[in-house]
Amino acid sequence: MDQASYLDALAIDRGSEQSLHGQLYDRIHVAIREGRLPPGARLPSTRSLSIQLGVARGTIDAVYARLAGEGCLIAQRHSGTIVAPGFRAAADTSVAPPRANAAEPWLPLQLGLPALDLFPRKPWTRILARQARQLPIDEMIAPAAMGLPALREAIAAYLAVSRGVTCGVDQIVVTHGFQDALNLTVDLVLAMGDTVWIEDPGYGFVQQTLSARGMAIAPVPVDEEGLCVDQGRAEAPAAKLAIVTPAHQFPLGITLSPARRHALLTWAAEAGGWILEDDYDCEFHYSGHKPAALKAMDVDRRVFYAGSFSKSLLPSLRLGYLVVPPQLAEAARTAQQLRHRGVAMFEQLAVAEFMRQGHFARHLRRMMVRYKARRNALVAALERQFGDRIVLTHRAGGLHVLGRFPGLGDDADLARRALKHGLKPSPLSGQYLKPGPDQGLLMSFTNVPEEKADEVAATLSRAIG
Amino acid sequence: MDQASYLDALAIDRGSEQSLHGQLYDRIHVAIREGRLPPGARLPSTRSLSIQLGVARGTIDAVYARLAGEGCLIAQRHSGTIVAPGFRAAADTSVAPPRANAAEPWLPLQLGLPALDLFPRKPWTRILARQARQLPIDEMIAPAAMGLPALREAIAAYLAVSRGVTCGVDQIVVTHGFQDALNLTVDLVLAMGDTVWIEDPGYGFVQQTLSARGMAIAPVPVDEEGLCVDQGRAEAPAAKLAIVTPAHQFPLGITLSPARRHALLTWAAEAGGWILEDDYDCEFHYSGHKPAALKAMDVDRRVFYAGSFSKSLLPSLRLGYLVVPPQLAEAARTAQQLRHRGVAMFEQLAVAEFMRQGHFARHLRRMMVRYKARRNALVAALERQFGDRIVLTHRAGGLHVLGRFPGLGDDADLARRALKHGLKPSPLSGQYLKPGPDQGLLMSFTNVPEEKADEVAATLSRAIG
Repeated sequence: MDQASYLDALAIDRGSEQSLHGQLYDRIHVAIREGRLPPGARLPSTRSLSIQLGVARGTIDAVYARLAGEGCLIAQRHSGTIVAPGFRAAADTSVAPPRANAAEPWLPLQLGLPALDLFPRKPWTRILARQARQLPIDEMIAPAAMGLPALREAIAAYLAVSRGVTCGVDQIVVTHGFQDALNLTVDLVLAMGDTVWIEDPGYGFVQQTLSARGMAIAPVPVDEEGLCVDQGRAEAPAAKLAIVTPAHQFPLGITLSPARRHALLTWAAEAGGWILEDDYDCEFHYSGHKPAALKAMDVDRRVFYAGSFSKSLLPSLRLGYLVVPPQLAEAARTAQQLRHRGVAMFEQLAVAEFMRQGHFARHLRRMMVRYKARRNALVAALERQFGDRIVLTHRAGGLHVLGRFPGLGDDADLARRALKHGLKPSPLSGQYLKPGPDQGLLMSFTNVPEEKADEVAATLSRAIG
Repeated sequence: MDQASYLDALAIDRGSEQSLHGQLYDRIHVAIREGRLPPGARLPSTRSLSIQLGVARGTIDAVYARLAGEGCLIAQRHSGTIVAPGFRAAADTSVAPPRANAAEPWLPLQLGLPALDLFPRKPWTRILARQARQLPIDEMIAPAAMGLPALREAIAAYLAVSRGVTCGVDQIVVTHGFQDALNLTVDLVLAMGDTVWIEDPGYGFVQQTLSARGMAIAPVPVDEEGLCVDQGRAEAPAAKLAIVTPAHQFPLGITLSPARRHALLTWAAEAGGWILEDDYDCEFHYSGHKPAALKAMDVDRRVFYAGSFSKSLLPSLRLGYLVVPPQLAEAARTAQQLRHRGVAMFEQLAVAEFMRQGHFARHLRRMMVRYKARRNALVAALERQFGDRIVLTHRAGGLHVLGRFPGLGDDADLARRALKHGLKPSPLSGQYLKPGPDQGLLMSFTNVPEEKADEVAATLSRAIG
């Protein structure tokens, strides 16, 4: 869309009852939704638009900020405001997307879900039901803002044993999951306008959240060793925070190399920067040793460590945790009081008891075996079905595989066709902030039992082949 | 503390390994905690302190902002930065304060708790236990960011019948309680530095939250008709938001008069301002008709309406809701995705079912009778015990009474003495932002059964009399 037609579309009606803000907002929003302003398109600067439309610059600033807050626009550090690459209408941005079919709350290959059929219902139900019957008085009043002490102790013990992360219980904040942990981290260490390194490709909600909170995004590419730290230093040396998935990079599955870990920690120490480690599916690794947590090497106390029970137990719990550096523990307590006063008691009690009785560790051990079997079955079925038409990347860990289908066309189109056949792979290109040539389908194996793998592969072949 | 000794205390050690930020933060923090910078004390401007200490102004800005975020400092609009009046150390600021005695999770007269002994355990337990046993697949995946549809429908029906508030289900956001609703409202309509009217006296977390989020506070006094709207308009005409408790003003219990309601809505329409109605204990009113919700008169769509299940059911649920004006419903959905993805499934299912089966309405009807009896018993016992030494104010609604004890001394001191005797009234003076002469004890009757009222009154008399 050229500059002239863009201005045409934005033309303000001064006789309208709608405010200038409202008019501008609506028009830009419609232009984005209808594709007249496509993802990546650059908007005029507020200064030039102010002159051209004869509208106060503050009004335009406010409209841009609101659209950035809603994830439609991104304010870049040096190169102005653009339409968010990969932006879809609000209802489409969820990781657990709306049902393709009202009868199905999820679909095979869909990312972001644990194996729903393998959840340990029996001990979980027993614990919940007993808890419901007891309800002593101190479980009726508001829980501590940092979280239930029993749960924080269980998490501390788990992290020490399983992730080599040793920390005081007072450093652990129980959160409503990663999204909440991310916002808490922002509250603790960032000021409006600060620059943040994020992985590209990466988890889309991170970019949307940071943009909404007024931060500048510095997308840093990921190669075979993980985050390209040198490139981050070169392009955004003044960044205040780096957000990384060191165990299994999302979505590529790469484990951050020792050299890059060292480089990242060195950057943080030298630049006074912070690191948020999103260890979202570290529990699931299928060959030899699990990758270490970056937090385990954090001698300079610059690393926040976020974990979640969404993959290891249930997404509907909305439960996770954040380990904060010890010098920020007191500030985290205050922040939690002012943010939402912490997490409801019931989930915390249940998970604490589930961990205390050993069910959590048992469940994780069992799932490692079961996920490995499901992964291998899906990989074998896809290879049988597609032969030379697929290039599969399956790393040693994580909950999905990546399939590239050379010559079969645009991955977003492939995903749409798969959805029509009742499958829900995610297009790799949609995970990139800077549009790139990398295409493929991300396919979760968590909810594809071994005996269903051939059927799923055949359906996918019919859909896209 | 005079300017010279203040600077002395802040003197920076350039040989220290600690950052300038860290040193300054620690020193101001210690000065506040130790009372050398008392509540209300004015700090030097960042500009003058920058010159005097030879430290970059940005560093000082950052330290002030961090301390404001922690509730220690308040950045006022015209008159610089002061130590928050009524600021206590972080651990003391909770509405459900730390246990005076480790065996007691709460104490008689404590604010912010419903009657824990009258909670309808039987139907609640039955619903929870059945829910735990069922766990269908669509209750295992992540709930919708705006909340469970069944709960939002139940809330919409309740609001229409009980509060005269008619709204679409799509305007209702399920929240983690009022604190979360407040932050969502800020996300939707405020920008950093905007001015907000708050009631003075009022609920302290509101001021702390707004300060932490970089807003300017305009405390507006409350008289016998409620918020003094004209004074707000005169002193802070450019305010963007007014936060009010129209049904029973917290803590004075006053119902906002019809004339003031009209004035407030007129202000919002004329100034393009917003109103957040905190209807925290509207359910409990003991004479004739409940006061109407301001939201019921919101023809101009400027009112956010916040409700909570903390008082009507249990604080440990951390569950509430926010009705947003319809033109902001879509923005609220995006904001919830980016904030924390909404509330856990279990509480939402349980409360929705509890409402659907009619238990919620029954419980509220029953509690109205029981609370009235407890209030009357406590009032009578205090009058018997204190006679002329107490001036009691008990309004037609709410969950606490206000007792003034002329000649008995400072109310914070009275509250401390009561705490030593196992009672937990709250000093009225601590609820004021601008220090004022108004003193008294706020005493909740929710957890004082009729037969214990005389004993509580006698203990209070021994403690403070």
